[in-house]
Amino acid sequence: MSNKEISIQVIRRLPRYYRFLTELQNDGVDKISSTKLSAIMNITASQIRQDLNCFGGFGQQGYGYPVAQLKEEIGNILGLSNKYKAILLGAGNMGKAVATHMDFSSLGFELCGIFEKSGELIGTTLRDITIKPDDEVQSFCKENDIKTAFLCLPKDAVSAQIDMLYSLGIKNFWNFSHYDITKKYADTIVENVHMNDSLMTLCYRITQNNKEK
Amino acid sequence: MSNKEISIQVIRRLPRYYRFLTELQNDGVDKISSTKLSAIMNITASQIRQDLNCFGGFGQQGYGYPVAQLKEEIGNILGLSNKYKAILLGAGNMGKAVATHMDFSSLGFELCGIFEKSGELIGTTLRDITIKPDDEVQSFCKENDIKTAFLCLPKDAVSAQIDMLYSLGIKNFWNFSHYDITKKYADTIVENVHMNDSLMTLCYRITQNNKEK
Repeated sequence: MSNKEISIQVIRRLPRYYRFLTELQNDGVDKISSTKLSAIMNITASQIRQDLNCFGGFGQQGYGYPVAQLKEEIGNILGLSNKYKAILLGAGNMGKAVATHMDFSSLGFELCGIFEKSGELIGTTLRDITIKPDDEVQSFCKENDIKTAFLCLPKDAVSAQIDMLYSLGIKNFWNFSHYDITKKYADTIVENVHMNDSLMTLCYRITQNNKEK
Repeated sequence: MSNKEISIQVIRRLPRYYRFLTELQNDGVDKISSTKLSAIMNITASQIRQDLNCFGGFGQQGYGYPVAQLKEEIGNILGLSNKYKAILLGAGNMGKAVATHMDFSSLGFELCGIFEKSGELIGTTLRDITIKPDDEVQSFCKENDIKTAFLCLPKDAVSAQIDMLYSLGIKNFWNFSHYDITKKYADTIVENVHMNDSLMTLCYRITQNNKEK
């Protein structure tokens, strides 16, 4: 089966496998059975076997999965050795959190530029990158062949900039706003981080739990 | 069907419905058909009808859904009118982003306290809340009957604090770290925000898209 045909549900579990395998490797674990991996990851062993079978040929039945090899292969499937050049728009609290917390190079990206509207942040540095004014986005992206943008902007600001970004050939977005990029540009690749949705889900689960008591 | 039996997949779509319905309401839209809602939300109309049927009795077939009423009912299901008291641990960049960006009161929560280890942040304010030192967490939670914590801490810091928090009766967590809380305490309610996983998924999708070209 080619990777193209793998369902998005399986794909969305791969980063989690990668994360747990990285921890096992750091803990010096060489091999792990689907049963043990199942206990650590809190998903069924049969789900694990089914997921990993999608990509074919991982591990030897009965011997467990070789941790380092499995991690490397999942990393290859995810494409983490790439260095996709990206810019960050918005150096407010969320932009700062993203710029300082993320280990982009281990996640397939290289953060090349940070842009901000507000005057006082221009010229300051974040992660050794000097923050530039918004009006330099176009020239920077053309010079550096940027195809990916991380958007730490309010919805209205994304709305105001999205046409310019798209016209520059930027079609890959990591989006922290609630602006719906794919609705306007269907051929973009967008991963949304909707923190509100996550908190509402927590609220629902607490509410249900209280009802059951 | 009671809400208990609703699948987590449906639940996870509810915040998205709520978000889009809020926008429609703000735009002055009174009624919307499942077909139109489908086009806006980029999911099939039959999925929408199926999801909303889970909760019974929304809208009149052929007349469209009343936007304000549907929004309110979904808000009720999510429990957004609650004011679950919560503390925030960690006032670094991520904690700051969370404290300043989130409209907690519209999401079912009330942020009551912010705690931080680092000396220089103690005594400063975030969103009119004075940041307190970590060693006041216990007394604060007991006095204010806190059951929910937002964790904007590194994994190791969560590991060091989780026993104390659990012993205080805090069993609801919004977790930005990669520490696996449910593995240690199975009776907790945890929503994780794994930004790394999201960025790895973006990397995968870009990589696949490049292969297809």
